Amino acid sequence: MSLSEFELIDTFFRRADHVGPRRAVVRNGDDCAVIAPAPGMQLALSTDTLVEGRHFLSTVSPARLGHKALAVNLSDLAACGAEPMAFTLALTLPRVDESWLKGFAKGLFDLADEHNCELIGGDTTAGPLSIGITAMGEVPAGQALLRGGARPDDDIWVSGFPGVARLALEAFRGSLHPPLSAEAFEEARLVLERPDPRVALGVGLRGLASAAIDVSDGLLGDLGHVLQRSGVGASLYLDALPVSPWLQDRPEAVQLDCILAGGDDYELVFTAPAARRADVQALGASLGLVLSRVGRIEAQAGLHLWRGELDPWPDDPARLAVPNRWTSFDHFKGDAT
Amino acid sequence: MSLSEFELIDTFFRRADHVGPRRAVVRNGDDCAVIAPAPGMQLALSTDTLVEGRHFLSTVSPARLGHKALAVNLSDLAACGAEPMAFTLALTLPRVDESWLKGFAKGLFDLADEHNCELIGGDTTAGPLSIGITAMGEVPAGQALLRGGARPDDDIWVSGFPGVARLALEAFRGSLHPPLSAEAFEEARLVLERPDPRVALGVGLRGLASAAIDVSDGLLGDLGHVLQRSGVGASLYLDALPVSPWLQDRPEAVQLDCILAGGDDYELVFTAPAARRADVQALGASLGLVLSRVGRIEAQAGLHLWRGELDPWPDDPARLAVPNRWTSFDHFKGDAT
Repeated sequence: MSLSEFELIDTFFRRADHVGPRRAVVRNGDDCAVIAPAPGMQLALSTDTLVEGRHFLSTVSPARLGHKALAVNLSDLAACGAEPMAFTLALTLPRVDESWLKGFAKGLFDLADEHNCELIGGDTTAGPLSIGITAMGEVPAGQALLRGGARPDDDIWVSGFPGVARLALEAFRGSLHPPLSAEAFEEARLVLERPDPRVALGVGLRGLASAAIDVSDGLLGDLGHVLQRSGVGASLYLDALPVSPWLQDRPEAVQLDCILAGGDDYELVFTAPAARRADVQALGASLGLVLSRVGRIEAQAGLHLWRGELDPWPDDPARLAVPNRWTSFDHFKGDAT
Repeated sequence: MSLSEFELIDTFFRRADHVGPRRAVVRNGDDCAVIAPAPGMQLALSTDTLVEGRHFLSTVSPARLGHKALAVNLSDLAACGAEPMAFTLALTLPRVDESWLKGFAKGLFDLADEHNCELIGGDTTAGPLSIGITAMGEVPAGQALLRGGARPDDDIWVSGFPGVARLALEAFRGSLHPPLSAEAFEEARLVLERPDPRVALGVGLRGLASAAIDVSDGLLGDLGHVLQRSGVGASLYLDALPVSPWLQDRPEAVQLDCILAGGDDYELVFTAPAARRADVQALGASLGLVLSRVGRIEAQAGLHLWRGELDPWPDDPARLAVPNRWTSFDHFKGDAT
């Protein structure tokens, strides 16, 4: 070990060149960081830990890992409609590898700067590699987007093209036949390893979405949390699902596996009143982000899959069964990535 | 694995019987927790991770571990003068052991309830055992106790009897001759495994202490952070150090090793103007807590040890050298506990 804990923090995680306004009253280096939300704002907090062998492969580039560790937390803030403000970093490292730390810090701070999110504190310790981040964001009092607000007849929307991260994972596992082209593999891998948190979308959905969640465990599984919390059911239209160009040549079963059950994309799934359909479309256009209307909320509990939107009534032959393999990823039952 | 991640959280970490007022606007179960400090208050945050084999032995009782994981964070809040409000828990577990989880949750929530500190969110994942907590507390705007406020001629104070946690650690290592009695071992072990965060003291020191820090790495090492941040030096009086009854029969070298270099006690070291000496003593009396005046801040940088308070000038033969072994614990250079 050539660096002590304090030297390590000073070298890699204390920045003279912080970009943008300081968000903390007191920042790292004291017993606590001190922050103060602006008047009328509340503080949204998210905590996520990434563990080697569980959430990432040891082969991932440290810069992408630094990016992703923060991105998954910013994604939770986005799903609440909160604007990123600050974060703490708890880093457990098996050894001090300066080149690794340099890359990790670069990926972390590049994303942090993009969202004006300041590192205000944390903890560094020796042990099996894991990265714990708690991110804080501001949201106007009472306007946080929650899981429990979906109402019957609301539209169900999804951003972007979920499923590509899962495609990359299957490529890593060697289970794709034919395999991905080199170009497609690099693109898909980028989505898996360096996801873009939908922060601007989340902020734009304040006062517009009735409920929101980010797709970390799989579209169906995460939508299920919204349904459960809201006490409603849903109909999904399979022909309305956005199919990424990287998935278009795959068999439909593979497409649906990836889109409906693939996690780790960090797109947002949200609901909004049908009367606000044009506002949602305008928001997507203003952000340059594809937003797809993929279903609707039903008063009756349960999740129903349909070929298309027309005539979506139970006991109709168009209704499809939900395969078990589309249930949500679970950290104690699911597969390791 | 008999429980899924969601069942695990529901069973052990979601409480119908929460004691005291709710602190969160939105609590665990959504993408984020949402909290709002009261008007005029700022939010102090602390993050600490405990890793098995590094911060605790695998033999520690789960209830004590649950207590300690939160206690080390409440101690940081105390060192800032913040009153605990809420915390998030990131738990990485090698397996789902229901009896372990039950004990862990009991120790955690018993301490949380004592300080009216609500679990508002977190993350559970599979991997090598580690516990990451981010605790939040409220402090009136501008009143947080910082490390940088010590001024020449301020008194240096320490709470309680630091050194007992180190004594327990030496007993675990079998390095004490003679060994501790069974009773002394149990008492010392309790201090190591179940430390009492000095929350009431920290709150009482608002507007009274000029600087504060908690003793996690060792009295001298942690005081060193205050000196460095404040741009001052210090004289310490060895004959004024509080010597725990469990240390009194040990040779002076062992006493000083434990008191000056032993970490993990979570007592507070703080500075206050000499003119406020009576106020500090009154605070200690009101809390039933021994507060010892152990030195004073000097304008000149450096740490000087003296037998006693009289005639504390440099180059005096009473001045003692600071042994290397009293330097601070470092997570990448120090010993594992």
